[in-house]
Amino acid sequence: MVESSSDEILEGADKADIAFLVVGDPFGATTHTDLVLRAQELSIPVKSIPNASILNAIGATGLQLYNFGQTVSMVFFTENWKPASFYDRIRENASIGLHTLMLLDIKVKEQSLENMARGRKIYEPPRYMTVMQCAQQMLEIEDEKKENVYAADSLAIGCARVGADDQQFACGTLKELCDVDLGAPLHSLVLLGRRAHELEKDYIKKFAVNPETFEQSWKKYHGRNH
Amino acid sequence: MVESSSDEILEGADKADIAFLVVGDPFGATTHTDLVLRAQELSIPVKSIPNASILNAIGATGLQLYNFGQTVSMVFFTENWKPASFYDRIRENASIGLHTLMLLDIKVKEQSLENMARGRKIYEPPRYMTVMQCAQQMLEIEDEKKENVYAADSLAIGCARVGADDQQFACGTLKELCDVDLGAPLHSLVLLGRRAHELEKDYIKKFAVNPETFEQSWKKYHGRNH
Repeated sequence: MVESSSDEILEGADKADIAFLVVGDPFGATTHTDLVLRAQELSIPVKSIPNASILNAIGATGLQLYNFGQTVSMVFFTENWKPASFYDRIRENASIGLHTLMLLDIKVKEQSLENMARGRKIYEPPRYMTVMQCAQQMLEIEDEKKENVYAADSLAIGCARVGADDQQFACGTLKELCDVDLGAPLHSLVLLGRRAHELEKDYIKKFAVNPETFEQSWKKYHGRNH
Repeated sequence: MVESSSDEILEGADKADIAFLVVGDPFGATTHTDLVLRAQELSIPVKSIPNASILNAIGATGLQLYNFGQTVSMVFFTENWKPASFYDRIRENASIGLHTLMLLDIKVKEQSLENMARGRKIYEPPRYMTVMQCAQQMLEIEDEKKENVYAADSLAIGCARVGADDQQFACGTLKELCDVDLGAPLHSLVLLGRRAHELEKDYIKKFAVNPETFEQSWKKYHGRNH
């Protein structure tokens, strides 16, 4: 899409101003950085306008933005392909006590193997990863690696449609979130860091799926410094 | 200000809708989280609207937003008060190779000791920390602690007026940035993480104060994984 069409997007920029609208912040994705570099090679002046994005809208969970580590992506697993680099990134964030925002996979314009083989431009319906799927995949990898980066009773916040009027949050253990249906996309998930603060607790406890297990896990993983 | 006036801000919210405008994202500061909690205690429904903030606008440097660790604050040192918690936070980010965004101190409505003692509501002119001051304070603390969290030749990007038409970036060693005047506020600074990527280099090299020292420091600290 953007990657393969940068020349097309930039075409005519010597004669007219070209505007390029994106969802979220223009520099949230490497793709757009590439596009600016390409424009600069062609001596086309570029002006970018920052926008809200999930990276700060996630503050609506009540978790403090300066307590987040690096953001990680979770892709749909297939039977033979279960990329687990997210596990190492979470380990790094966890090692210094920080929260991890996980951005969940979106599949649009996918072709079935058959349609691809036959060169038919027929696309599958779009797929958006849910909080349930993310929590399941996280536990699948922890079960496999057993390095205790997180556990079934680790606290996380499932987030749906952040920034929209019907945004929704559910705070629970990863095990619990495997069964929490948050409805329509887009979803994302935050795994809580050890260093979570009491003020954050005061805010997120109203999203608790189960107040009892919430208190247990909070005490077990986050209550030590207080 | 907001901390001490939450009751005043929320007054009348049972009869009319109250809008509260902030600079940047509403949840960029603990203060606003507090305000929402206070409103909820009073059963006042709250709706927040996410906004762009320095946390994502910093992407205009060309550094990838998912390569940032926790955000840290740098306050003005005084002769007897040089809070260095930023040093530990940077160490944590550096330990996992991530960039650190540093938000620089703003002093408004300050009273001189004399005016405070005499109860005179006369305020000093506002002060905004510059990239130069931040780089100097960083090196002062490294000189004192000598734990090699960063060095005089570590690469950083000084940022001024990010998001405005006259935004400006200067990439150089901390030593160099001690002498780079980026003009009017607001300023911020990004200390590069070890894991910086070649695509990021392609983008930031045009901001280099000195292309030669830039290449040297890049090779020394960031060129190993490539």
